[in-house]
Amino acid sequence: MLSKSDVTDMIYEKKRGAGLTWASIAEGIGMSEVFVTSACLGMNALPRDKADLLTRQLGLPQEAAVVLAEFPTKQWDRQVPTDPCIYRLYEIVGVYGDTLKELIQEKCGNGIMSAIDFSMEVEKVPNPKGDRIEIRMSGKYLGYNAW
Amino acid sequence: MLSKSDVTDMIYEKKRGAGLTWASIAEGIGMSEVFVTSACLGMNALPRDKADLLTRQLGLPQEAAVVLAEFPTKQWDRQVPTDPCIYRLYEIVGVYGDTLKELIQEKCGNGIMSAIDFSMEVEKVPNPKGDRIEIRMSGKYLGYNAW
Amino acid sequence: MLSKSDVTDMIYEKKRGAGLTWASIAEGIGMSEVFVTSACLGMNALPRDKADLLTRQLGLPQEAAVVLAEFPTKQWDRQVPTDPCIYRLYEIVGVYGDTLKELIQEKCGNGIMSAIDFSMEVEKVPNPKGDRIEIRMSGKYLGYNAW
Amino acid sequence: MLSKSDVTDMIYEKKRGAGLTWASIAEGIGMSEVFVTSACLGMNALPRDKADLLTRQLGLPQEAAVVLAEFPTKQWDRQVPTDPCIYRLYEIVGVYGDTLKELIQEKCGNGIMSAIDFSMEVEKVPNPKGDRIEIRMSGKYLGYNAW
Amino acid sequence: MLSKSDVTDMIYEKKRGAGLTWASIAEGIGMSEVFVTSACLGMNALPRDKADLLTRQLGLPQEAAVVLAEFPTKQWDRQVPTDPCIYRLYEIVGVYGDTLKELIQEKCGNGIMSAIDFSMEVEKVPNPKGDRIEIRMSGKYLGYNAW
Amino acid sequence: MLSKSDVTDMIYEKKRGAGLTWASIAEGIGMSEVFVTSACLGMNALPRDKADLLTRQLGLPQEAAVVLAEFPTKQWDRQVPTDPCIYRLYEIVGVYGDTLKELIQEKCGNGIMSAIDFSMEVEKVPNPKGDRIEIRMSGKYLGYNAW
Amino acid sequence: MLSKSDVTDMIYEKKRGAGLTWASIAEGIGMSEVFVTSACLGMNALPRDKADLLTRQLGLPQEAAVVLAEFPTKQWDRQVPTDPCIYRLYEIVGVYGDTLKELIQEKCGNGIMSAIDFSMEVEKVPNPKGDRIEIRMSGKYLGYNAW
Amino acid sequence: MLSKSDVTDMIYEKKRGAGLTWASIAEGIGMSEVFVTSACLGMNALPRDKADLLTRQLGLPQEAAVVLAEFPTKQWDRQVPTDPCIYRLYEIVGVYGDTLKELIQEKCGNGIMSAIDFSMEVEKVPNPKGDRIEIRMSGKYLGYNAW
Amino acid sequence: MLSKSDVTDMIYEKKRGAGLTWASIAEGIGMSEVFVTSACLGMNALPRDKADLLTRQLGLPQEAAVVLAEFPTKQWDRQVPTDPCIYRLYEIVGVYGDTLKELIQEKCGNGIMSAIDFSMEVEKVPNPKGDRIEIRMSGKYLGYNAW
Amino acid sequence: MLSKSDVTDMIYEKKRGAGLTWASIAEGIGMSEVFVTSACLGMNALPRDKADLLTRQLGLPQEAAVVLAEFPTKQWDRQVPTDPCIYRLYEIVGVYGDTLKELIQEKCGNGIMSAIDFSMEVEKVPNPKGDRIEIRMSGKYLGYNAW
Repeated sequence: MLSKSDVTDMIYEKKRGAGLTWASIAEGIGMSEVFVTSACLGMNALPRDKADLLTRQLGLPQEAAVVLAEFPTKQWDRQVPTDPCIYRLYEIVGVYGDTLKELIQEKCGNGIMSAIDFSMEVEKVPNPKGDRIEIRMSGKYLGYNAW
Repeated sequence: MLSKSDVTDMIYEKKRGAGLTWASIAEGIGMSEVFVTSACLGMNALPRDKADLLTRQLGLPQEAAVVLAEFPTKQWDRQVPTDPCIYRLYEIVGVYGDTLKELIQEKCGNGIMSAIDFSMEVEKVPNPKGDRIEIRMSGKYLGYNAW
Repeated sequence: MLSKSDVTDMIYEKKRGAGLTWASIAEGIGMSEVFVTSACLGMNALPRDKADLLTRQLGLPQEAAVVLAEFPTKQWDRQVPTDPCIYRLYEIVGVYGDTLKELIQEKCGNGIMSAIDFSMEVEKVPNPKGDRIEIRMSGKYLGYNAW
Repeated sequence: MLSKSDVTDMIYEKKRGAGLTWASIAEGIGMSEVFVTSACLGMNALPRDKADLLTRQLGLPQEAAVVLAEFPTKQWDRQVPTDPCIYRLYEIVGVYGDTLKELIQEKCGNGIMSAIDFSMEVEKVPNPKGDRIEIRMSGKYLGYNAW
Repeated sequence: MLSKSDVTDMIYEKKRGAGLTWASIAEGIGMSEVFVTSACLGMNALPRDKADLLTRQLGLPQEAAVVLAEFPTKQWDRQVPTDPCIYRLYEIVGVYGDTLKELIQEKCGNGIMSAIDFSMEVEKVPNPKGDRIEIRMSGKYLGYNAW
Repeated sequence: MLSKSDVTDMIYEKKRGAGLTWASIAEGIGMSEVFVTSACLGMNALPRDKADLLTRQLGLPQEAAVVLAEFPTKQWDRQVPTDPCIYRLYEIVGVYGDTLKELIQEKCGNGIMSAIDFSMEVEKVPNPKGDRIEIRMSGKYLGYNAW
Repeated sequence: MLSKSDVTDMIYEKKRGAGLTWASIAEGIGMSEVFVTSACLGMNALPRDKADLLTRQLGLPQEAAVVLAEFPTKQWDRQVPTDPCIYRLYEIVGVYGDTLKELIQEKCGNGIMSAIDFSMEVEKVPNPKGDRIEIRMSGKYLGYNAW
Repeated sequence: MLSKSDVTDMIYEKKRGAGLTWASIAEGIGMSEVFVTSACLGMNALPRDKADLLTRQLGLPQEAAVVLAEFPTKQWDRQVPTDPCIYRLYEIVGVYGDTLKELIQEKCGNGIMSAIDFSMEVEKVPNPKGDRIEIRMSGKYLGYNAW
Repeated sequence: MLSKSDVTDMIYEKKRGAGLTWASIAEGIGMSEVFVTSACLGMNALPRDKADLLTRQLGLPQEAAVVLAEFPTKQWDRQVPTDPCIYRLYEIVGVYGDTLKELIQEKCGNGIMSAIDFSMEVEKVPNPKGDRIEIRMSGKYLGYNAW
Repeated sequence: MLSKSDVTDMIYEKKRGAGLTWASIAEGIGMSEVFVTSACLGMNALPRDKADLLTRQLGLPQEAAVVLAEFPTKQWDRQVPTDPCIYRLYEIVGVYGDTLKELIQEKCGNGIMSAIDFSMEVEKVPNPKGDRIEIRMSGKYLGYNAW
C-alpha cells in the first residue's frame, strides 16, 4: 500500500530524471505552483481528476493517483524549523505576529485569517538592487462567534 | 529610563483614549501600517524623525521618541504561539514551509528570502462569499555563498 | 489602564461576595453560560452592549465594559494542562483526535471543524448510576481550498 | 505476532480496496462510529464478539480479532498536535478549558468529567450558511474524595 | 481577596510559630493527614465545616475558611520534579508504570485506577535494618466504556 | 545477542498463546507479581535461579535466562506519560508530591523514601460501590547526610 | 517570615562586607566546605546547633538559624545548566554516565550510588602544568530489592 | 564500514561470552577502568596501540582497532537521564552545582574545572554500615581570559 | 536514488580508506576547507563542476556529483548540541550573543550579520603556551528595512 | 546590594545620556570592545583596577566596581535565541558545527577549542558590494586526556 511519502519520492525521482520543474508539473495539470507542489509533498489533496492527470503525465503507477487524492495528515517535525529558508518564515511570524493580529482585527473585527480557506502564490520579482521574492497569501476572514 | 514596552503601553492608552487606529497613526507619519504598528509594539525601530513626529502627534513625552528609534531586541515568548490569529500563520509555515523552499529555490537558486531586507502589507479584500485578508511579503533573495 | 485579567479578578470578587453563579450572570445579559464565562475569564470579547449590561449588573466601574468588549489575545500557559478537570479534555483530544479527523472528513470532505465559527454548551445530565456531564460543540465545516 | 498497528493497516487496506466507510463498518457490528473507529485505530478495545464479527466482515485473519480485543496502550506523539483538524480541538481545550472547569464544578461540585466512563458522537448538521459539525461528549461526573 | 497560596503561607507561619505538626492539625479536625495536608497546600478543598474548624483552631481570619473550601486549580511547575523526595515518586511511576497497568488490567479489566475517587495514607514503619515508609493508595477502578 | 526487549516479546507471545496471567507466572517462580512483571518488562533483574526457572516454565531459550538476570538500564520515553492508566499515577505525584514530602519528613526527618530499596504490591479490593485498586509501596527511609 | 533565599542573600551580604570565605565560614562551625556552602545556598539543612553557631558568628538575626535548619525543597531552574562551570559537570554526567553505571554495577551489583547518604569534597591540587581541581564523591551503595 | 556502536556491541558480546570484566579488559591494555570502559562505549578514543592490543586480546576484527581509535562524537539522548544510577549523578549536579562553582572559584579564581583535560576513577569502599562508592574527578583549572 | 547522507558515507569511506584529509580534498577542487567539508557533510551545495571534479578524484559514482550539487535542507537534531567540541561554540553564542549584537549594531546600524552571504575559515595557530584555534567568520551586513 | 544587572542598567543609562559608544568605553580602560561590552552586560568579570577605572569614568557609585569585578554566573534564557542578530550565530553553529569539529580535530587532534581561554573581536569591513562584518575567535586547543 503506497503512502503519501512513497509517492513524493516517486515524483522527486521522475522530476530529477526528466529535469522537470514544479512550474511545469503544475502547468501540466492547470493548477497553481504552490498548491501542486504542496500536494506532491503530501500536504494537500489533489482533486481526483488532477491526480489522474498528473500520474499519467509523470508516468507513475495508477495507485499513485489514489494516494495523491487522499486527505493528508499534516505533520511537521519540529516546533522551530532549522533550514534557514523555512526558519526565516517562522521568524517573520515571531516578529510580526502581534502586528498582523492588530491590523487584521482593526480592519475586519474580532477574528482571524483562515489557513483552510486559503491560497498562496510565490513569485520572483527582478530588481536592480537584487531580485526579490514576493509571497502573497489570501485567507478568508473568519469572525469569532458570540452566542 | 523608559523601555520599549513602557512606550507600547503609552501608545495603547493614547490610542484607546482618542479612538485612533493603527492606520491613522501610520498615515500621520507617512509610513506603512505594518511597519509603524510593529515599531509601536517594540519589534522595529522608527527612523528618528518619524519617531519625533509620532511622539508629537500622540502627545507622548519626548523620551518616547528616543526609545522608539532605538534598535529593538526581538523576542517572543513561546515556540508555538497560542492566539488563534497568530497560530494560523505558524501553521501556514508548518504546512507550506517545504513548498516555499522548493519554489523559492527553483525560481532563484540556492538561497532564501530575507526576513531583514523585507517588507509586508496586509489588506482586507471584500468578497461576496465572505471578505478575505491578503498578506503580501516581499523579501530580497539572498544566495548562499560558495568559497 | 485596566487589563482583561484585572476585570476577571473584579468579577470573581463580586461573584463570591454576592454568591452569584455563572449561570445567573449569563442569564442576566441573555447570552449562553459558556460564552459569558469565557468572556469573563478573558478568552472572548462581549458585544459592547452586553458588556455594558454586565458591568451595570455587577456594579463594576465603567471602564470594565470597554475592557470586556476588547478583542482578547488568547494565551494558555502550558502545552499539557495539569488540572485534572482540564487534563481530561486534553486526553480526549489525544485519544480521539485521529478518530474525529477520520469521521469529520468522511462525513464532510477534506476539511476541519472551525474553532472560530464555533459554539459550545455544557450540561449536567442526572443519571441513576451517577450524574453525567454532556458537552456539545458545534463548529462550521471549513473545506480546504484547492487552487 | 500482530500488533494493533498492523491490524490498523489491514483495516485501512480493506477499507480502501472495498470503498467502505467507517459508518458502514460500525453499523456492521452494531456499535457507534466513534468507538469503532477509535478501536480500529488502536485506541480502544472491541468486545471480543464484536472483534470476531468485524474480522469476519472485513475478511481479516482470525488473529486480528484477538488483537482488536486486547487492551490498548494509548499513546500520541506530540504534546501539541500539528494536523489542523486535530489542532483545532486542542485549541478549544486551551481557550475553553478554564471555562469548562468553572461550569462543570458550578453544576456538579468539586470534580471532573470522566474520560474513561465516556462516550462521544460526531455528526454533520446541514446548514444553509455552511454545514456544521456537532460533537457531543458524555462523561460521568466524578467527585473528588475527602477522607 | 485571599488566594489559596496566601492561606498556605498563613498556615505555615502558624504551624512554625506554634510548633504544630500536620498530624495534629489533621487530628484536630478529624480527617486524614494526607488529605488535610494537601488541602492546606492548596491541592484539595476542605468541606466547609472542616475549613471553619481548622480556621478557628489555628486562629486564622474567617476568610481563610472560605478559601480552604474553594475548589482548587491543581497546578505543578515542572514536568519532571527536582526535589529528590518527590523525584523518587516520579521515578517509581517511570519504572513501574507499565507494570501497574498490566496488573491493574489483568485483575480488573480494561480500565484505570481513579485519581479522583482516591485516597492515600503514608506511614513510618520501624524496622531494625532501617525504618521504612509505607504509602497506601486506594482508587476506584473505572472501566472504559464501549458504545 | 538477545536484548531485554526481545525477551519481553517472547514472554508476551508465550503468555498469550498459553493464556497465562502475570499472577501465575509470578507464582510459578515464587516471587511477587509486581517484581516479576517488571522484570519481564525489562525494568528489573531476576535473580539468576529465578530467571532459569521462569525460562524453563515458559519454554524460552536458555539465553533468555541470562538476559532476564542482567542489570537493566531503566528508560522511559516521555516525561509526561500518555496512557490514561499510567498518567493517573503521574498526576497523583503532581498533586500529592509536596504533601508526601511534608509528611515523610515530619515523620522521619530530613530525607526521602528510597525507590531502590523498595517494594510494591497492587491488589483488587471488591467494594459494593465499585471495586477499588489498592497500591502499597514500601521504601526504606534514607536520611540526608551532614558532613 | 524569612525564606531560605532571604537568608542566602543575608549571608552573601555579610560575606562580601567582611571579606569572608566559604572555607572560613565552614571552619567556624566545624563542618565541611561543600556541606556548609550548600546549606547556605539553601540546598541542605544545617543541624540546629550549627545553624545557631553560624548565625551568631555572622551576626544574622536569630530567625535565620531556624530557616537554615529547615528541610529544604531542592529545586533548579533548567534541565541543562548554562553557566560553564556547572555545565562541565553536567557534560561529565552525559559523557561518563553509562560508564559509571557499568563500573558501579560491576563492582557492587545491581544498584546505585546514593545521592542522599552522600558526601563530597573539592580541592585545589597545585600542578606545574597548571593547577587541577579534584572532586571526591562518596555515596552509599544501594542495591535494588527483589521481592 | 563499522561504527563505534557496532564495536561496542562486539565488545559486549565477547565480554558476556567470556565472562570478562571491564577491570580485566582495562588491565589487559594497561589503562584505567573508567577511560577504557568509556572508550569501549564509544565516548572516548583509545590510543591506536592500545586499540590494537584490545582488539587482539578480545579477538575482534582488525577494523575494530581503527574504529576504537577514531575521535568520537559524544551524544546522549535526553537532557534528563532516566536510569536511576545515572539520574543520581545528574541530581548531584543539580543540587551541588552552585556550591561547586562557589568553591572552585573561591579556591582558584574566575574559571572552571575542565571536562577535557580530565580524568576520573570509581572505587568500591567497604564499610560496615554498608559499602560506599567513591568517585574521584580531576580536571585542570582553566581561568577565563580577559583581553 | 542516492541521498546527501549516502554520499557523505561514501566520502567518509574513501577518506578513511585512502587516508585523505579534508584539506587535501578541498585543495583538490580549489575551494576552501570549511565550505568543501560542509558540502561533503550535506550542509552546502557544491557548484556542479566542482562536484564533478570531487566525484572523479574520489572515485565516487557519477550520481554522487548530482547529489553534491543539489540544494540541501539544513537540519540539526537537538536545540542544544552535546558533543563538547560543538557545545563550546553554542556556549560562545549564549555568552557573547548580546555583546555581538551591541557591537554589530553600534558599528553598522540596525541590522544583522548574514549567515547566508557568509564565509568562514578555521586555522591552527601554534603558540608556545599551547596551540590555539582561530575561527574567522565574514558575513554581509544586512540592514533592517523601514517602509 | 547591587546586582550585575543593576550595574548593567546604570551603564546603559549613562551611555545613552552621554551618547557614549562601547568602543569609547572600552578604549577608556584600555581593553577590547568585546570583552568590556560583555563585562558591562554581566557576562564577564573586569579586573578590579579596570572596574575602578570604568566606574570613575562613567561616574557610577563605587560599589559598582566591586560588582563589575565579581565572578559572573553566565545565564541565558532560551535554548534557541529569537533576536535575528543572535539567531544567525546560533544557525551558524547548527549548520557548521560538525564541519568545525572535523577541521579542528583534523588540524590539532582529538580535542576542542576552549571557550574559556578564549578571545574574540568583531569588526566592520567596508566593501563596495555591501559592508561585511568580520568576527574572529581565538581559543586554546585542549586535547582530551587518556589515562
